[in-house]
Amino acid sequence: MEDMIKIALDAMGGDNAPDANIQGAVEAVNTSNNIKVFLVGQEEVIIPKLEKFTYDKNRIEVVNAREVIATDDPPVKSIRQKKDSSIVVGMTMVRKGQADAFVSAGSSGAVLVGGQIVVGRIRGIERAPFAAVIPTANGVSLLLDSGANVDARASHLVQFAKMGSIYMENIMNVKNPSVALVNIGAEEEKGNMLVKETFPILKNSPDINFIGSIEAREIPFGNADVIVCEAFVGNVILKLYEGLGSMFLGKIKESFMKNTKSKIGALLVKDSLKTTLKTFDSSAYGGAPLLGLKGLVVKSHGNSTKKEIKNSILQCEQFVSQRTNEKIQSLLLNKAL
Amino acid sequence: MEDMIKIALDAMGGDNAPDANIQGAVEAVNTSNNIKVFLVGQEEVIIPKLEKFTYDKNRIEVVNAREVIATDDPPVKSIRQKKDSSIVVGMTMVRKGQADAFVSAGSSGAVLVGGQIVVGRIRGIERAPFAAVIPTANGVSLLLDSGANVDARASHLVQFAKMGSIYMENIMNVKNPSVALVNIGAEEEKGNMLVKETFPILKNSPDINFIGSIEAREIPFGNADVIVCEAFVGNVILKLYEGLGSMFLGKIKESFMKNTKSKIGALLVKDSLKTTLKTFDSSAYGGAPLLGLKGLVVKSHGNSTKKEIKNSILQCEQFVSQRTNEKIQSLLLNKAL
Repeated sequence: MEDMIKIALDAMGGDNAPDANIQGAVEAVNTSNNIKVFLVGQEEVIIPKLEKFTYDKNRIEVVNAREVIATDDPPVKSIRQKKDSSIVVGMTMVRKGQADAFVSAGSSGAVLVGGQIVVGRIRGIERAPFAAVIPTANGVSLLLDSGANVDARASHLVQFAKMGSIYMENIMNVKNPSVALVNIGAEEEKGNMLVKETFPILKNSPDINFIGSIEAREIPFGNADVIVCEAFVGNVILKLYEGLGSMFLGKIKESFMKNTKSKIGALLVKDSLKTTLKTFDSSAYGGAPLLGLKGLVVKSHGNSTKKEIKNSILQCEQFVSQRTNEKIQSLLLNKAL
Repeated sequence: MEDMIKIALDAMGGDNAPDANIQGAVEAVNTSNNIKVFLVGQEEVIIPKLEKFTYDKNRIEVVNAREVIATDDPPVKSIRQKKDSSIVVGMTMVRKGQADAFVSAGSSGAVLVGGQIVVGRIRGIERAPFAAVIPTANGVSLLLDSGANVDARASHLVQFAKMGSIYMENIMNVKNPSVALVNIGAEEEKGNMLVKETFPILKNSPDINFIGSIEAREIPFGNADVIVCEAFVGNVILKLYEGLGSMFLGKIKESFMKNTKSKIGALLVKDSLKTTLKTFDSSAYGGAPLLGLKGLVVKSHGNSTKKEIKNSILQCEQFVSQRTNEKIQSLLLNKAL
């Protein structure tokens, strides 16, 4: 039990909490023999629900936390005042080494603030970015910063590029991942002040595979493994991806229901279309880690299903067993970060 | 002939120039009786092609311009040195009042720089933004700045909001258009420095219908008529729109061709799907005007077909006949801009 990877899960965070979270935890321990999950939250709510499932009792433990941080609670105030919330209790376990990782589908703001205040950044890391996995025409790309630190500086973006490369190589098994900087033109002289300052530094970084600028038009085609940008832009990309995807799907469904002919056609294309669209199912990729913290903190989607929760937990196992943070720290020691 | 709206068209700009441009001009004068088009470019190339079409000879005139600005020519240098290029000659006609508007599918950079240097901004307008019409689930929205001026200030964004409102009201016939500021959260305190500074000013502007922040996720659903943002973010939104749209369509087509069953189904859904997807055909909406100049300058898509060229020309007619620039100027005189 001692050498297991220990993951604290916020049982109370997310639109489908606590049920999806509890089920996701059960499915995760039933999938991997190498993890132990701490379900952090109100035990009187969790225990009766958990009792209905079959799983190795030694590998799920309920940790009581009486408070809950709501998604519209002010993040800084909540983290400072709600000491007995599932987020603060779970993150404190990571800080104290009682857990290797913390997963939450709760308030992004609270996870972000808690990550910095409770868990803390690795010494030498200036900012901890959210790194989101986005589906593309030929696989996935890692988008960072996808929403943690607005108004970043060039030095932050350079650290994001390096941490993102380590993540893609170790967690997504991409060898020598290509890194591109989001820009509004392909040429080096294009862009805003931040991009113009960042581009030459990335270009001269020997420890990453920098391939230059990427225009937003190219992102969906998977032309880069690691996509680096400032958090405001990254968050716009991430959310527009979601919004356009869901709008297109809605429109396609609408057109299928238009008349009898289209309804019959829809039945015939359904299987084939489903297989294709499955590639774009973001729940398959778990959550977005906050990179550069002393422990691992993963933000799972607010409307996470049990599948997303399970995948977020399993992603932590990969992160910890690949000693990802140690690799980030060794880059820092070598002054390469 | 004197009271016609006169539009100078860059005959040489764009991937399909000069053929699509010449045909677009012919179709425009055959559609509207109220316009005259100047085809600006190399007359020895244009005239033989133009001769093949049937149209009112009094309403298309070829204006010779021997030089061409290529898309990869440096914009500022080209505008300053290629005095006899179709872009500089056409824009000079606007500045001198010989034309009411200039349309180009050529280099965005050259159109942008030429608009500022050759045509010039309306006195009091700090920056001239590109305003792009984007298709949504229930119509269209105007996105500005979609790529002209990176690193904008709050006062610029406020002018964009007001000019965008005038444009939507007069050109797209939207009464009391709603205005939203692109943000990474719905609450007023969310966002980067620029957004935090801009939000309260927009909120206190009595002459626009400001509805608050819009997250990128909501943009495709048409929740705001005018979407205001800084040019880097706007360009990312515009291009991601294009990229995701084309990637999704490719994937859907791929899934339709997977097997015999899906191929038959595809035949049955085709008509209905086409009607739906037609709403997302950006060529229907013409080009992106540079707002706030002394005359009208419209940037049509680089790969404009004759249909897009035609619609960009007809859009100018609407802009000029609605006296849009006069409305912008009167707001300025009233110190409301």
